[in-house]
Amino acid sequence: MVAASIITIGDELLIGQVIDSNSAWMAQELNKAGLTVKRRVAVGDNAPDIRKALDDESAVSEIILITGGLGPTADDITKPLLCEYFGGKMIVNQEALENVKHLFTQVFKRPVTEINLKQAEVPDNCTVILNGRGTAPGMWFERNDRVFVSMPGVPHEMKGMMTDGVIPKLKERFQLGDVYHRTVLTAGIGESAIAEMLTGFEQKLPNDIRLAYLPAYGMVRLRLTGIAKDERLHESLNRLFDELKQIVKTYLVTDEDEPLAKVILRLLEQNKGTLATAESCTGGYIAHQITQLPGASAVYKGGVVSYSDELKQMLLSVPSVTISEHGAVSEPTVIAMAKGAIEKLGSDYSIAVSGIMGPTGGTAEKPVGTVWMAVANNKEVVTHKLQLRFERKMNIEVTAMQALLLLRKLILQQQKA
Amino acid sequence: MVAASIITIGDELLIGQVIDSNSAWMAQELNKAGLTVKRRVAVGDNAPDIRKALDDESAVSEIILITGGLGPTADDITKPLLCEYFGGKMIVNQEALENVKHLFTQVFKRPVTEINLKQAEVPDNCTVILNGRGTAPGMWFERNDRVFVSMPGVPHEMKGMMTDGVIPKLKERFQLGDVYHRTVLTAGIGESAIAEMLTGFEQKLPNDIRLAYLPAYGMVRLRLTGIAKDERLHESLNRLFDELKQIVKTYLVTDEDEPLAKVILRLLEQNKGTLATAESCTGGYIAHQITQLPGASAVYKGGVVSYSDELKQMLLSVPSVTISEHGAVSEPTVIAMAKGAIEKLGSDYSIAVSGIMGPTGGTAEKPVGTVWMAVANNKEVVTHKLQLRFERKMNIEVTAMQALLLLRKLILQQQKA
Repeated sequence: MVAASIITIGDELLIGQVIDSNSAWMAQELNKAGLTVKRRVAVGDNAPDIRKALDDESAVSEIILITGGLGPTADDITKPLLCEYFGGKMIVNQEALENVKHLFTQVFKRPVTEINLKQAEVPDNCTVILNGRGTAPGMWFERNDRVFVSMPGVPHEMKGMMTDGVIPKLKERFQLGDVYHRTVLTAGIGESAIAEMLTGFEQKLPNDIRLAYLPAYGMVRLRLTGIAKDERLHESLNRLFDELKQIVKTYLVTDEDEPLAKVILRLLEQNKGTLATAESCTGGYIAHQITQLPGASAVYKGGVVSYSDELKQMLLSVPSVTISEHGAVSEPTVIAMAKGAIEKLGSDYSIAVSGIMGPTGGTAEKPVGTVWMAVANNKEVVTHKLQLRFERKMNIEVTAMQALLLLRKLILQQQKA
Repeated sequence: MVAASIITIGDELLIGQVIDSNSAWMAQELNKAGLTVKRRVAVGDNAPDIRKALDDESAVSEIILITGGLGPTADDITKPLLCEYFGGKMIVNQEALENVKHLFTQVFKRPVTEINLKQAEVPDNCTVILNGRGTAPGMWFERNDRVFVSMPGVPHEMKGMMTDGVIPKLKERFQLGDVYHRTVLTAGIGESAIAEMLTGFEQKLPNDIRLAYLPAYGMVRLRLTGIAKDERLHESLNRLFDELKQIVKTYLVTDEDEPLAKVILRLLEQNKGTLATAESCTGGYIAHQITQLPGASAVYKGGVVSYSDELKQMLLSVPSVTISEHGAVSEPTVIAMAKGAIEKLGSDYSIAVSGIMGPTGGTAEKPVGTVWMAVANNKEVVTHKLQLRFERKMNIEVTAMQALLLLRKLILQQQKA
């Protein structure tokens, strides 16, 4: 297997101002192309650390992908540093220059400045990778059978460049292998309990196939991975995967590597059911999980973020006496919300949640982390209570996932009935 | 300055299945405690790569923080590897054992299994850092004046352990310096244009203070950083920061390192105004941006995700003729949505958005990326059109930020009037 290292450059990564989502996306794409990512390294905007990272990573990997530090401002030192590292000199690249001018006159509709034009300068010993979405060109260097590619850190610019330029060129340049993954998502069972179920299965796995456990929001993802350019490996991995699914079948949510919301969308489509959401404590996060997926509009009618008691009454017809007697965070309230959503939003199914996400707002009787949820259709309402013990953000995320799981259960039960 | 390296362990990081948000959080906390993070490295679940990372990082940093690979399953190899690396042998730690039993009987309310009890085993040459939120104990090793701390990769377990155990112990053990940051967020000006405004300012910066440009969703964050345990540095950085704010004042959104939604919450609080949202294409993401912040309920009444035309009419009283004549993505529709939100949800201010986020759904007249937005109060409605060219997720995020910026403008204008 050809190995790659990813180097991300930027002080913002080392002070934690920015979460590095680029590396994860790059790793996925490199994997699909048949490369293993061996290491990911983040270093600051300073020359000795960048040079050391280039030295170190080229000692372990054939391909070194670099992002960041290509902006037009003084803190962006990657380009001159690479020029010096590979012993080149800066020249204006005509194609990159046309691109800068085109972007400013046609797309941004702003005047081009000196500083922008400087973006078209590149070391004379690199091959330029065109950036269709921004002014900083990518740069491809080769030395001692190692390939170094420098790209901007702006995610959508990097992504365009990887897809259109870098991945195709890597496939031409190297004899790439094949990384094969299959994934199941399970719910309702802990990591260690599932591991006990799988002890025998794990022991008989061949050396070239690995099993990984990935816990996520009260669910566990199981991933089988094989690495080889070999049809037989695919076949034996598929056979093992079927066996794995069989062992965990009581807890199986999906056998694709996909978000839970996608499972729900597909189930709704299959059942020709529409969905509405009535969110209090998750504040739109469930709706966002669904609507960030392409095609959500086919089954998702919409939702209400009824953050105040007033709106629970006005938009969802929750009786004021229900709230005053039982409180906004209670089983009767989420039942009324779920029924109200179906009635007022005209959907087949609904999800309703109400809870206390923290850090404040808890009482002795209902401490922070108390959540009530209900899912409904015109025949049935099912409720569930959670007592969470995370921080606000995580409480919101876990609640959303558990509510989607509860809806899945209801749909599946009714499918059988 | 004492330097730290962060090593994250897990194949899932190298195949891109998981975005590493732990490192960013850890870097922030280490910074606050007066440490510089020198490098962040991610390696897979394999012994030679983990050993190499331990060797390499201890050559450049005094403190090596390690997360991941501590689960109870066979793919989690960090603990035995560290035991061997530091030449210890495994023993049962009584405190960790009590913790495992307590968690299972009192919190998870599930029977304890053999595999869970194994979590209480640790190398005999480490100091245990208690994990209040999970079964895997943290481990603190020392060798050659280097400190190595191993923590689980589960974010809320790691966070609890860092806050309660690791950071206080590091402060005891090392003479920590002081990293001082100040940040402004600007909007309405590009990175290169702002860099030209700041050329003179950058040239006169002293050597121990740095300026960084961080573009984010059509805005630019500017960060001044100084590193020293020195009151005078704080003073001179503060003076420079005031100067910086003065130069960019036309574009300044906030002089705190905080999300845009927090700026909006504060503005609303100051003006005693309440907010409602009416989202189509952003599908709850604006509501989520607001409600993920503690205290949102003080000013946020709630919102509607009117994903279908039907709900735009039912929940927001958008006239059906407006949609049939101009389309759901049009200026008249978002005006009606914004007015409807104020009326039906009873708020002082409202935000309304409708657009085509892709990848499909565009037409020649309204291509993917066309977005209309409106913000309103009872006196005024202001609209804005975007033509975005990102993928779906980024289109949603940029739209949300631009809508919040538009609301900010309206509130500020009315404050003046």
